[in-house]
Amino acid sequence: MNSHYDDPTFFNAYAEMNRSKYGLKAAGEWQDLKTVLPDFTNKTVLDLGCGYGWHCRYAAEHEAKQVIGIDDSQKMIQQAQSMTENNNIQYKTMDMFDLDLLGQTFDVIISSLAIHYVKNYAELVQKIYKQLNTGGSFIMSVEHPVFTAQGSEQWVENSQGENSYWPVDHYFDEKVRTTAFLGFSISKYHRTLTTYVQTLLQEGFILDHLIEPQPPQEMLQENQEMQEELRRPMMLILAAHKLNKKS
Amino acid sequence: MNSHYDDPTFFNAYAEMNRSKYGLKAAGEWQDLKTVLPDFTNKTVLDLGCGYGWHCRYAAEHEAKQVIGIDDSQKMIQQAQSMTENNNIQYKTMDMFDLDLLGQTFDVIISSLAIHYVKNYAELVQKIYKQLNTGGSFIMSVEHPVFTAQGSEQWVENSQGENSYWPVDHYFDEKVRTTAFLGFSISKYHRTLTTYVQTLLQEGFILDHLIEPQPPQEMLQENQEMQEELRRPMMLILAAHKLNKKS
Repeated sequence: MNSHYDDPTFFNAYAEMNRSKYGLKAAGEWQDLKTVLPDFTNKTVLDLGCGYGWHCRYAAEHEAKQVIGIDDSQKMIQQAQSMTENNNIQYKTMDMFDLDLLGQTFDVIISSLAIHYVKNYAELVQKIYKQLNTGGSFIMSVEHPVFTAQGSEQWVENSQGENSYWPVDHYFDEKVRTTAFLGFSISKYHRTLTTYVQTLLQEGFILDHLIEPQPPQEMLQENQEMQEELRRPMMLILAAHKLNKKS
Repeated sequence: MNSHYDDPTFFNAYAEMNRSKYGLKAAGEWQDLKTVLPDFTNKTVLDLGCGYGWHCRYAAEHEAKQVIGIDDSQKMIQQAQSMTENNNIQYKTMDMFDLDLLGQTFDVIISSLAIHYVKNYAELVQKIYKQLNTGGSFIMSVEHPVFTAQGSEQWVENSQGENSYWPVDHYFDEKVRTTAFLGFSISKYHRTLTTYVQTLLQEGFILDHLIEPQPPQEMLQENQEMQEELRRPMMLILAAHKLNKKS
């Protein structure tokens, strides 16, 4: 799915990102994501596309009873294991579409910046709904449709090389987009907001939050470039829960 | 609020728009809006910013028991009255923030392309929630945040005068925007998707639908310019309901 994470060159470049070196606090969306996470106490938690395992460790540190992090990159899972001492966390190299093969259901399923790599979102949402316990929570973040629509993921610049505006195009054309990330050509899937939200609602989820995160004040003050993040939404956080068993 | 509708020149220009001359069928968003409207049978219905009254008449024709359409433009209300024979519909010239002065609650509250003219959205949502009966529905359409963010509401063109991109800028800056519409300078309020949705959820609404409408196939085939509407979202439809009385 996103096997570039197993390429040593890509993996090393990813390791140099602030969010890899410094974890959740260095992720611009974390302040907002944190506010929509449920109480983890005594919960079973699954993280789809867990990467370095930051969210798994956060859940375990907040009294989750059992945490499973899955990622299809073997190198990511090795990295997560090397950073984790907590015995309540298990990491597995597997495709997130195999979550129904884990042989259990969960109280909380989270997925941070991984689902835009997934082609069949509706099928994944169905599986997530099925593997959630009644009353369980699903929290996801993805790149925002405004960010992914046009395809270049680049500002349009003026003749002085300043950012003029963020270009939006092909918004309703829900296909793969190929963009440059850390020097690699990466495929991801653009979907409309309509698709992201309606698919959850049609499956039976109750929407609790829709948040377009903004960088926290201290990041905005420390880093002038972060001001650009206020000019267009880059990420989308959705939090929902499963109210009743479907008939 | 949007008193330009009472200016005779603006009013006459508005009268020449397809949606004014031909009604709901000429409105690109109607096919999508129609799918999220509730069953009107025996319902009490309020339309905030009713304009010509198309949605009021649709509700009455679909067996609504009582329909009230309000608009702060006297000329719009006169126009609506002149087009309506059904005694179940009343039109009133009043500000939509006075909906709590109508002395009754409603089963359905709708608002089509009017709430982007409103400065205090949170206060309006509070009032709407309060005037809705338990189980009642609220359905609104507004100009999409992607459409309003940058402020010009114009495509960026290339040197051949073709549309290159839709520009997004100042997305998180929720202030008034002044744009040209039918030769007039019109003020409207840009809000993020986060604000549109979270305000409903925080008030207690259950979200039923979030839809970015696309023009129907026959409009796309008849009118080549309509293809441009697939390049960026122009409108946003939200449908929600009031589950329980708030404590």
